[in-house]
Amino acid sequence: MAEVTQEATTESRKVDHIRINLNENVNFPHLTTGLERYRFMHTAVPELDLNEVDSSVSLFGKTLNAPLLISSMTGGAELARRINQNLAIAAQEHGIAMGLGSQRAAVEDPDLVKTFQVRQYAPDILLFANLGAVQLNYGYGPDQCRRAVDMIEADALILHFNVLQEAVQPEGDTNFAGLLKQVEKVTKEVGVPVIAKEVGWGFSERDVRNLANAGVAAIDVAGSGGTSWSEVEYHRAPTSFHAKVARSFADWGIPTADAILYAKAGAPQHPVIASGGLRDGIDVAKCIALGATIGGLAGPFLKAANESVEAVNELIRELVAQIRIAMLCSGANSIQALQETKLYKD
Amino acid sequence: MAEVTQEATTESRKVDHIRINLNENVNFPHLTTGLERYRFMHTAVPELDLNEVDSSVSLFGKTLNAPLLISSMTGGAELARRINQNLAIAAQEHGIAMGLGSQRAAVEDPDLVKTFQVRQYAPDILLFANLGAVQLNYGYGPDQCRRAVDMIEADALILHFNVLQEAVQPEGDTNFAGLLKQVEKVTKEVGVPVIAKEVGWGFSERDVRNLANAGVAAIDVAGSGGTSWSEVEYHRAPTSFHAKVARSFADWGIPTADAILYAKAGAPQHPVIASGGLRDGIDVAKCIALGATIGGLAGPFLKAANESVEAVNELIRELVAQIRIAMLCSGANSIQALQETKLYKD
Amino acid sequence: MAEVTQEATTESRKVDHIRINLNENVNFPHLTTGLERYRFMHTAVPELDLNEVDSSVSLFGKTLNAPLLISSMTGGAELARRINQNLAIAAQEHGIAMGLGSQRAAVEDPDLVKTFQVRQYAPDILLFANLGAVQLNYGYGPDQCRRAVDMIEADALILHFNVLQEAVQPEGDTNFAGLLKQVEKVTKEVGVPVIAKEVGWGFSERDVRNLANAGVAAIDVAGSGGTSWSEVEYHRAPTSFHAKVARSFADWGIPTADAILYAKAGAPQHPVIASGGLRDGIDVAKCIALGATIGGLAGPFLKAANESVEAVNELIRELVAQIRIAMLCSGANSIQALQETKLYKD
Amino acid sequence: MAEVTQEATTESRKVDHIRINLNENVNFPHLTTGLERYRFMHTAVPELDLNEVDSSVSLFGKTLNAPLLISSMTGGAELARRINQNLAIAAQEHGIAMGLGSQRAAVEDPDLVKTFQVRQYAPDILLFANLGAVQLNYGYGPDQCRRAVDMIEADALILHFNVLQEAVQPEGDTNFAGLLKQVEKVTKEVGVPVIAKEVGWGFSERDVRNLANAGVAAIDVAGSGGTSWSEVEYHRAPTSFHAKVARSFADWGIPTADAILYAKAGAPQHPVIASGGLRDGIDVAKCIALGATIGGLAGPFLKAANESVEAVNELIRELVAQIRIAMLCSGANSIQALQETKLYKD
Ligand SMILES: Cc1cc2nc3c(=O)[nH]c(=O)nc-3n(C[C@H](O)[C@H](O)[C@H](O)COP(=O)(O)O)c2cc1C
Ligand SMILES: Cc1cc2nc3c(=O)[nH]c(=O)nc-3n(C[C@H](O)[C@H](O)[C@H](O)COP(=O)(O)O)c2cc1C
Ligand SMILES: Cc1cc2nc3c(=O)[nH]c(=O)nc-3n(C[C@H](O)[C@H](O)[C@H](O)COP(=O)(O)O)c2cc1C
Ligand SMILES: Cc1cc2nc3c(=O)[nH]c(=O)nc-3n(C[C@H](O)[C@H](O)[C@H](O)COP(=O)(O)O)c2cc1C
Repeated sequence: MAEVTQEATTESRKVDHIRINLNENVNFPHLTTGLERYRFMHTAVPELDLNEVDSSVSLFGKTLNAPLLISSMTGGAELARRINQNLAIAAQEHGIAMGLGSQRAAVEDPDLVKTFQVRQYAPDILLFANLGAVQLNYGYGPDQCRRAVDMIEADALILHFNVLQEAVQPEGDTNFAGLLKQVEKVTKEVGVPVIAKEVGWGFSERDVRNLANAGVAAIDVAGSGGTSWSEVEYHRAPTSFHAKVARSFADWGIPTADAILYAKAGAPQHPVIASGGLRDGIDVAKCIALGATIGGLAGPFLKAANESVEAVNELIRELVAQIRIAMLCSGANSIQALQETKLYKD
Repeated sequence: MAEVTQEATTESRKVDHIRINLNENVNFPHLTTGLERYRFMHTAVPELDLNEVDSSVSLFGKTLNAPLLISSMTGGAELARRINQNLAIAAQEHGIAMGLGSQRAAVEDPDLVKTFQVRQYAPDILLFANLGAVQLNYGYGPDQCRRAVDMIEADALILHFNVLQEAVQPEGDTNFAGLLKQVEKVTKEVGVPVIAKEVGWGFSERDVRNLANAGVAAIDVAGSGGTSWSEVEYHRAPTSFHAKVARSFADWGIPTADAILYAKAGAPQHPVIASGGLRDGIDVAKCIALGATIGGLAGPFLKAANESVEAVNELIRELVAQIRIAMLCSGANSIQALQETKLYKD
Repeated sequence: MAEVTQEATTESRKVDHIRINLNENVNFPHLTTGLERYRFMHTAVPELDLNEVDSSVSLFGKTLNAPLLISSMTGGAELARRINQNLAIAAQEHGIAMGLGSQRAAVEDPDLVKTFQVRQYAPDILLFANLGAVQLNYGYGPDQCRRAVDMIEADALILHFNVLQEAVQPEGDTNFAGLLKQVEKVTKEVGVPVIAKEVGWGFSERDVRNLANAGVAAIDVAGSGGTSWSEVEYHRAPTSFHAKVARSFADWGIPTADAILYAKAGAPQHPVIASGGLRDGIDVAKCIALGATIGGLAGPFLKAANESVEAVNELIRELVAQIRIAMLCSGANSIQALQETKLYKD
Repeated sequence: MAEVTQEATTESRKVDHIRINLNENVNFPHLTTGLERYRFMHTAVPELDLNEVDSSVSLFGKTLNAPLLISSMTGGAELARRINQNLAIAAQEHGIAMGLGSQRAAVEDPDLVKTFQVRQYAPDILLFANLGAVQLNYGYGPDQCRRAVDMIEADALILHFNVLQEAVQPEGDTNFAGLLKQVEKVTKEVGVPVIAKEVGWGFSERDVRNLANAGVAAIDVAGSGGTSWSEVEYHRAPTSFHAKVARSFADWGIPTADAILYAKAGAPQHPVIASGGLRDGIDVAKCIALGATIGGLAGPFLKAANESVEAVNELIRELVAQIRIAMLCSGANSIQALQETKLYKD
């Protein structure tokens, strides 16, 4: 019976997360991504043809048509399966990358595996598996990681770090001691590149240095300013005590713009995935100009995927157009040129 | 038939532009001209007589009574003709400069020429012809430019650069590659001075340097903070895709105050026309103190000209009075003295 | 008849000014005194007794009980006479200084003299006569100045500089050329100290240096941030042209805090009277800590005097209490100690 | 009869204070604690176990389970007795420190002693007696201090400095001259450590240096940004004169964050208690990272204690959880590590 309850809990938790993210305001109340502090220098005479602007980029040996990632979100429930399917079809159509939500439930319950499997809809995309890093302190190791990767034929594995989310939850997994050693074991044995990812509070420069030393291949900063997971947990809090504790951390974290700079400082040679609060293609372009290789969005894709494949397609088309026009109007004809573009601050 | 449709389209587009500019909020949502950051040092003891303050200035061999330009706006439709007539009568009355809207339609359709012809109302003013620079990549050259100049007996030709406006339009002319070479050909052969002008996003210092090397005689910065042309296109967008892409660029661009400084840095010897968001004579005076020779306004003149000649006259009278009082109260008795006046920042 | 009309005009203008100042919002829309940028360092252990704090100060050979001036306001009408009487009685009661409004009307029409005469109510106070400096370019000289001083048995003469107010008025006296020479003649011959005073836009450092060289004995900065005289004229404007021109200067001027620093820089040995937007005793105390000797208020005293002597008395009592408590809580037991107190900026 | 009246007055004043603090807005209108300017650097990889984070700290020979103080508030009335009892029971339960309100009333009237006595409910806690420092200029000395300490079996004595509160009260005790010498006598003779405490306006660096030289053992900064005592007195003002004077000081004072830095600069070896506007455990943690040893709250505890013991318990639980999670997410596993944590400013 215990397992059954556990599964039920997982399913309802997953649906809770989706419901709260769709219906409640889960933005940071005051903290912003910091991207609004940066501006492109407009060029009126770019000497470029918009049609020749090249927005493609390579990561882990695959080429994306645009520097875009649908960030890890869901799985483990029927609603989640449909969302993943919609996302995958559109990602394939546009040639962009995609991550799946934490696969722990499926690692533990084979019945849930199908809610994560999207390869049939997206045979060519760069696809990321996902597990919570802290599980490595609760019995997980390279084997479970391997299972998550294989289950979805992923190109790489994301280990997400969510210490604050665990800490504000009633029974959160809050033992983060000695985790770097466990991560190192995984990076050595799992056989695919490992990406360390936050979930909305960013990494410090020291975190990034430590993770690079532990063998991770890339950093997804998932900084502050977009979806706030302490606010999500606030909306799920079972008691006023938990609600107040979660609420007090509503503006905690490292703004995404700062987190990108920390990541480049801590691991200058590692590709950086920028995410956390990116809301249009200009945001993505700014992140790349700050040093990122691609940019990821979660919240906006959730809303679109909850509607239809066509809504996701339209969102991607908008993002791509915005990125390309931002490139044109700042004189960058390739992602590399964009990475070398200097932003200025007001 | 194709031409007929094309003309119809042009006419209705021109009327659309006027209607949107008159009825919708097309200001930058947040971005300002930056002029509000600068202040004149008030002098309580100017040792000047207001009646002796000299606000006249010379440009391209003509003397203006005040450093004012009615910026390029319209033509190509009956409504536009009436607006141009009202503007020209007032410009002549007060001895200020005026530009006409893009003459492409009239270059292609002789029937529309009369909607641009204002010399009969303004025999003495400094008058500017206008064409989109990007047309030089779509079949235009010195001949078409010459035709635009001759058609209205202009003293100089404005080539406007509007890359972002083209990029957010459904079928915009977005090939800006190799344009500098085309511009150079025009500056060499057209026989009148050529002014490079933006339409509301400003030029970077590098742009200005490149344009000066291509032989332009002056820069009209048309910086950000006033009329936003991506917002105008937002209001004309045929699909939600185009609307969202246009909207995301609502705060793009180089504030007018910065653009003036870039222009002076990029081409120290070239006269600079300041425009973009100037809303009273104090704004004009600040621009001159930052290095400009004259200041241009578009939006406010459109509203006045849509009413009557008298409304345009009143607007010019107000602007001139404000410029002259600002000169008095900052101790500048000539435009040159105003150009040497130091502004201070809060 | 001409004189009669002139008097009538003067009377109604004076009453207009009072009415507008009492009933309309004539504050600067955005510009502040700048005093809010400065803070006292609180001392919790002042080692002082509030009863021993000495707020007296000497100026032009007279001792004030508190460093306060009722700034120049009115005269020339019956309503003005009653206001002056109320102010004078309270000034005498509390031993503070007072200025009268511009006496030009009374210099020209002996019937109006009595509306300025307050010595009978305030035999001991430091009392200032007042004339517009620009009148020295319109026929006035040492004689008329002497008449203004004698008429009210003043201790000193204020010459007010109001170039912007003149410039935005329909028929303003706007010839300020060569005024310094005229001022110098007055300072040499009038026989009492001359104070140069603005009316709400402050003096620049260069103005102050010029005025000191012309022999003025003190500077009343009358900086920006309080009553805006272009806004007063806006409310009196006869045409929309005059209204719009006046309105555009609503935020012109040198904030009072800056003006004090300019005055000390331009004439380090001259006593400085701080005024323009002072609204409580903490403001007055800050001005003194910035270098002023006393602080003046106009608008707040007008409202009180329009009510009763008792209202003026209550206002003075509040101001004095606030000054003394600010001295106690910043550890200054004398005005000199307050002048040496360092403020800090956030 | 005189004493009876005095007692009556004291009782009603105490109840007034509680009532006003519970029902009126007594926050600083604009001034903040300054803590919002500082941020922790989030660490996503803390290498810590939340259960192993040690939030205990020692002060005056006693160990607290968390770095928390219930700041001095009340006594001298039946309502106050009940509040003190509720606070003490919860303080004992959680092992945190507590201060009582000013005991002057009880020193002078033995009948009121019981309203302060809480040792029976809190045998183990660190407990602080409280008297107004200025009373040392009005007949108090080491004897009265000793009586206050003994009456409640306190571990230390707080002398509070409230010069501004006294100054804005109708008959306030405003002779603060020579107070340091009196304080020194007390610190030498009273036999327990003496803490100098403000009540909401902070100490300057010079104050702290002077107090350290006078022998105080610790500083409770009680800076600005939380409860404003001039606002409390504003609500109690008997006349509009007193109300206006009190109101004008509503934003006076040294923000708590600045006051902590001044205290560390003025007395680097003295333990600092941070208080004034702390509203959650993250605020407390920031104060400790700025150099404090523990953090105190008054207003929030008053509201909880007015409800029930359980409400106080819940508040403490929240504060402790917030402190511990802030420690986890900034990588500090002990209070000492937290003190060494660098904050950053936006
Ligand atoms: C509904 C939802 C579920 C999420 N689940 C996961 C997850 O399982 N694993 C993970 O690494 N991040 C997860 N995230 C975090 C996102 O990947 C992303 O880092 C974060 O939301 C910030 O991006 P955003 O502001 O664009 O939403 C989730 C986000 C959302 C909105
Ligand atoms: C109705 C309208 C039509 C315009 N058409 C043109 C044009 O044809 N050519 C051009 O160079 N600029 C054109 N502009 C841009 C203006 O010349 C000017 O650069 C811009 O509006 C910023 O100035 P403003 O803020 O004072 O309006 C137009 C502006 C308006 C309002
Ligand atoms: C009703 C009124 C009349 C004034 N008339 C004079 C005047 O005649 N001469 C003068 O020097 N200043 C005059 N002033 C200006 C004041 O002396 C003072 O410089 C200015 O109002 C700024 O101070 P405030 O902000 O405290 O009002 C007048 C002000 C007011 C409100
Ligand atoms: C109802 C009440 C009574 C207080 N009484 C005293 C007191 O008697 N002695 C004292 O030192 N501070 C007293 N204080 C001040 C507090 O100890 C504290 O310094 C101040 O309120 C700032 O903290 P807060 O912002 O957390 O309220 C009192 C505060 C309150 C709210």
